[in-house]
Amino acid sequence: MALADALRHIDDQRRTHVDQLGEFVRIPSISAGADTDARGNLIRAADFLVGQFGQIGFAAEKVQVSADTNPLVLARSPDFSPDRPTVLIYGHYDVQGVDNPRAAWEVDPFAAVERDGLLIARGASDNKGPTFAHMKAAEAVLAVGDRLPVDLVFLVEGEEECGSKAIGQFVAEGGLDEFAPLLCTVISDTSMYGPDRPSLTLGLRGIVYAEVEVHGPKQDVHSGLFGGIVQNPNQLLVDALAGLVGGDGQITVPGFYDGLAPLSAREKALYAALEVDEAAYCRELGVAALAGERQYPLLERRWTRPTLDINFLSGGSPRTVIPAVARAAISCRLVPGQDPARVQAALEAHIRSRIPSAIGVEFKNQHISPAYYLDLDHPLVEPTLKAIRTGFELEPVLTREGGSIPIVVDIAAHTQAPVLLVGLGQITDNWHGPNERFSLHDFHRGTRTAAALFYELGQGS
Amino acid sequence: MALADALRHIDDQRRTHVDQLGEFVRIPSISAGADTDARGNLIRAADFLVGQFGQIGFAAEKVQVSADTNPLVLARSPDFSPDRPTVLIYGHYDVQGVDNPRAAWEVDPFAAVERDGLLIARGASDNKGPTFAHMKAAEAVLAVGDRLPVDLVFLVEGEEECGSKAIGQFVAEGGLDEFAPLLCTVISDTSMYGPDRPSLTLGLRGIVYAEVEVHGPKQDVHSGLFGGIVQNPNQLLVDALAGLVGGDGQITVPGFYDGLAPLSAREKALYAALEVDEAAYCRELGVAALAGERQYPLLERRWTRPTLDINFLSGGSPRTVIPAVARAAISCRLVPGQDPARVQAALEAHIRSRIPSAIGVEFKNQHISPAYYLDLDHPLVEPTLKAIRTGFELEPVLTREGGSIPIVVDIAAHTQAPVLLVGLGQITDNWHGPNERFSLHDFHRGTRTAAALFYELGQGS
Repeated sequence: MALADALRHIDDQRRTHVDQLGEFVRIPSISAGADTDARGNLIRAADFLVGQFGQIGFAAEKVQVSADTNPLVLARSPDFSPDRPTVLIYGHYDVQGVDNPRAAWEVDPFAAVERDGLLIARGASDNKGPTFAHMKAAEAVLAVGDRLPVDLVFLVEGEEECGSKAIGQFVAEGGLDEFAPLLCTVISDTSMYGPDRPSLTLGLRGIVYAEVEVHGPKQDVHSGLFGGIVQNPNQLLVDALAGLVGGDGQITVPGFYDGLAPLSAREKALYAALEVDEAAYCRELGVAALAGERQYPLLERRWTRPTLDINFLSGGSPRTVIPAVARAAISCRLVPGQDPARVQAALEAHIRSRIPSAIGVEFKNQHISPAYYLDLDHPLVEPTLKAIRTGFELEPVLTREGGSIPIVVDIAAHTQAPVLLVGLGQITDNWHGPNERFSLHDFHRGTRTAAALFYELGQGS
Repeated sequence: MALADALRHIDDQRRTHVDQLGEFVRIPSISAGADTDARGNLIRAADFLVGQFGQIGFAAEKVQVSADTNPLVLARSPDFSPDRPTVLIYGHYDVQGVDNPRAAWEVDPFAAVERDGLLIARGASDNKGPTFAHMKAAEAVLAVGDRLPVDLVFLVEGEEECGSKAIGQFVAEGGLDEFAPLLCTVISDTSMYGPDRPSLTLGLRGIVYAEVEVHGPKQDVHSGLFGGIVQNPNQLLVDALAGLVGGDGQITVPGFYDGLAPLSAREKALYAALEVDEAAYCRELGVAALAGERQYPLLERRWTRPTLDINFLSGGSPRTVIPAVARAAISCRLVPGQDPARVQAALEAHIRSRIPSAIGVEFKNQHISPAYYLDLDHPLVEPTLKAIRTGFELEPVLTREGGSIPIVVDIAAHTQAPVLLVGLGQITDNWHGPNERFSLHDFHRGTRTAAALFYELGQGS
C-alpha cells in the first residue's frame, strides 16, 4: 500500500528532514521592519525553497508581484492531471524579528540548535517547520515511486509577518484562477490544541483594527501656562474610550453584536469536552484571575465570542504638558455572523459621538477581515481527522482559534473552496517571542499527517 | 543722587553688559539629562559666575551640597552690615536642552547670536539674562562709588531644570539661616505681562504631580489568543481617568476644591483691567476656541483657578496586543487655600476607587507644592512697583502666573520673608523651545529696575 510506504520513508528519513529544516531556519528571513540586508535573506529563503521543490520534481518559481514586495514561491507537483483534485498548500518563509527581547534568547536564534527534542530557532514553528512538513510529505510519496493522489500547489509567501501584501494582491488579481476548481486549501499556521492533542481548527476570529488620533494644541504646551483654557486631548481620548468594555466583559458599542450567529449546541458540547486548566492560564498570563464574560466557558470566550481591546495608548510625556495629540489603537475580534465593515463603522461612529464635534479626530490604518468558519458537517472534516489519526496515532479534536489570519479568508473567498487548518505547532512554541521552538516529534508526525491527508483527499474526490 | 549715577552707569555700560552676558550664554550648561560632558559645562558656568562676582568685590563660592548635585553659587556683597536689611536674590545658571527639536533652531543655540535687538540663545531669558541683570545692577552701584543700600546674597543654582535638588536640601538644612532675618527674596524667573508691560507677579499656582501604573498580564499578550479572558490595563486606565475634568472644565475628584480661597473683588478687578487678546491665544495655541470654566475670565482661569491635566498616556503598542501595563501622568495646578497633600490623597483615592481592587495599581514619582501668594497689601508691593517704574519708565501691572516654582515656596517658608517675583523676560521668549531669546531692551531696563529696587528696599527698611 502506497501510503504505508510513504509513511515508512518519512520514518526512515526523520534525521535527514530535521537537518534540511535546520538549513532552512538558519536563513534569518526576518520580514517585519526589514532593511536591505534582511531583504537579501528573504530572497535566499525563497531561493532555498525553489531549490528544494526543484529537487523533488516540482515546477517552482519565484513570483515578484510588485517591486517592493518579497517574492512568493509558487510550486506545482509534477504531471498535473485533470483526473485528480487540486489542493493548495499555503505557508510562509518569512519570520518575526528576534529583538523581543534579544537578550531573552538562550541560543542563537538562527543556529538551529536542537535541545530535548526541540528545534529552538526563530521560524522553526512559525512557519518554516510546518510548511516543510508538507513538502517532505510530497517528497516521500514521490520517493517511494507513487503518483501523488492529488495535484499539489504550494504558495509560500514572504510577508506574513508584515501584512501579506504580495499574496493579497496575487489572490485578488486571480493568481489562483488557473488552478480552479480547488478541492481545498491546507494551512498549517495554527496550533494543536496541546501536546499530543492534534486538532483540526474549524474557525478563526475576524478582526477590525483602527488607530484614532485626537488633536489638541498645535504643539505640546505647558500645563502651568495654559492649563485651564485649552482642552486636553488625553482627557478627550480617555472619555471617548471609557467603558467600551464593561466590567462584565460586554462591549458597549451600539450594534457591535448585530448578526452574531449563536454557537450550535453540538459545537458547544465539543468545546465543553476539552480539558481546560484555568490555573495554568493564570500562571501563563501572570494574573490572579481570568476575566471577561463569565457566563461563557473559557474556550468559548477565547474562540467564539467577539472582543474589543485598546491595544495602544499614547499621548504627551511624563512631565507637565498638555499634549498636541493623543493616540489609541483599538482592535476587535469578530465571530461568524458579524460584518466587519459594520463593526468598523459602528466603532468609529461611537467614538466620534463621544468627542465634541469641534475637536479634530482622525481614524487611521484601519483594516478589517471577517471570521473564518468551516462547518462541522463539511465532507472534508472526517477525511482530515482520519489523516491526523494516521499521522499522529492519536485521536484528534476539533477546535477554533481566537486569532485572525486574513489571508485564510481571502483564499477561501477567492477559491470558493474550504480551508483545512491543521496546526502542527504548539501554542507554547513562542512564535513571536524569544526561544521559539518546534517539537521534532510534532514535525515528524506532522509530515506523516500531510502524507496521509494527500491520500485521504485523493480518495474523497 | 546715587541711584541716578548707577542708572547712568548702566546706560553707559549697556554694550559691555550684553557682551558679558554673551560669554555666559556661550557655556552650554544643560542640566536636564546631563551626561559627564555636560557636567563640566555646568561647573564652568558656576565658575564663570564666581569669577564675575569676585570682580565686583563679592565674596563668592561654590557650594557642593552633595556629591551628585551641581554646585550652588553663593555670593555676598562686600561689607555686610547689621544696619542694612538683607535681600536674597535667586537665579539659576543651568539651562534646558536644545533637542526640542534641535532642527527648529535657526541659530547655534550657544553662539550668543544677536538679531533685531534680541539675544537668541538657550538660557538667554531662562534664566542667565535676568540673573545677570541683578549682578550688573550691584556692579553699577559699587562702580559709581556708592554703598549698596541693602546687603545682597545671591544664590544661583544649577538644577532648576532638573528638580532643584541641591538648593532644596540647602534651604531645608538651614543654609540661609545665617542671613536671617531677610527683608525679602527677589526672583526674576517669571515673565512680564507682555512687551512693554512690566509686572510684579503676586502668585504662582502650586502643583500635585503623580504617575499611575495599572498592571495586567506579566507581559504583553496576543489579543487574538487571549482577548476575552484577560483584563486589559489600557481599558482599566481609561475607565479610571474618564471624566476627571468635565466638559465644563469642572474637576470631579471629590474634595478637590476644598479650602479654595475666593478671589478678592480688588484682585479680580485688577485682572479684568488687563488687556486680553483671546484670538491671539487661539493662534498661538493652534486651536479654534479656548476651553475650560467659561464662567471665569481667561486670566482667572490661567492664574487663579485650579486645573487637572492628564499629561501622559502610554500602554501597549500599535498592534494587536493586550499590554502588561498602562501608564499615565496627571498633574494638578493648585491655588491659594488648597492643601497639596489633601489634593494628592484625594486624587489617588479617587483613581483607586475606580479600578477593581484585584488589579495592581501603583502611584509613582509623586511631588507636590502649594501655591505661592503675596498679599496685594504687603508693604513691599509699592516699593517694587516704584522700582519697576523707574527702571522701565513704564507703568507696571500686578499679575499672577499659572506655573509652579516650588523653590519659591520653599524659600518663602524657610525665610519667613516675602518673595518678589519681578519677571524680566516675555512669555514668548520660548524658554524650553527652539530659538529662545531675550530682548536686550528688557535686559537693560531690567538691570535698571534691579538697581532701583535695591534703593527702594534700602529706604523701606
